[in-house]
Amino acid sequence: MTGEEARRRFAAARVARLTTVDGEGRPHLVPIVFAVDHHVVYSAVDHKPKRTTALRRLANVAANPAVAVLVDHYDDADWSRLWWVRADGTARVVPPGTDDARRAVALLQARYPDYADRPPGGPVLAIDVVRWVGWAATTPPAGSS
Amino acid sequence: MTGEEARRRFAAARVARLTTVDGEGRPHLVPIVFAVDHHVVYSAVDHKPKRTTALRRLANVAANPAVAVLVDHYDDADWSRLWWVRADGTARVVPPGTDDARRAVALLQARYPDYADRPPGGPVLAIDVVRWVGWAATTPPAGSS
Repeated sequence: MTGEEARRRFAAARVARLTTVDGEGRPHLVPIVFAVDHHVVYSAVDHKPKRTTALRRLANVAANPAVAVLVDHYDDADWSRLWWVRADGTARVVPPGTDDARRAVALLQARYPDYADRPPGGPVLAIDVVRWVGWAATTPPAGSS
Repeated sequence: MTGEEARRRFAAARVARLTTVDGEGRPHLVPIVFAVDHHVVYSAVDHKPKRTTALRRLANVAANPAVAVLVDHYDDADWSRLWWVRADGTARVVPPGTDDARRAVALLQARYPDYADRPPGGPVLAIDVVRWVGWAATTPPAGSS
């Protein structure tokens, strides 16, 4: 799968999984909603229920900016339909109130109605993607989605 | 969510995402199928199509045994139904041909028909879970699944 095809599939997905790593090499893995703008993946830190998790994510990125974000498709009945795409990159925290943060929140709100009704209150995480990689069990026929 | 409830939800899922980390703190994130036996998560390294990915996983575990495995439920229409559970632990490669490897493959074959027809040929990864953690947007009513 080409990098552009991986990027396209990634950008169209609704949920992804983000790994950050702490200063001792211990991974932290959580699901995220996100928006892709060219080669940047934006996600927002949510409200109180995930507060501890959110703080871990931000602390990890400060200690080690290397992150990975995965989108995958699983089909229990047909393993020939499996595929996954991954964004490997470096993460940075976007300060609230900046143009970059406002743009990221607007992109997220455009994708997710829940965010439109209730904007995410926390910091925004921006991931500068260094590499889009992907794998598919079989190549879909031309013209299929 | 209690650790036991997190373990129960994890064990019932069909697909999970595994993060390993290399010696420089760079994460590697892939989807896996798996089987849970008490507090061990087993997965098998697949055949040739994922060969590079499989080797990376094994090399990472040799350099750094700390791993995380995530199961999540996403519902685009209703964020009050979101939940995720995660197994944090340490991974080891189970040598092929051992009783432990045969048992792991039998557990995987019992869960996945594709494995029953075609046993996984590569090494088995065993993750000794140190901590089951989970989060749910809302607590399901008593008696619900």
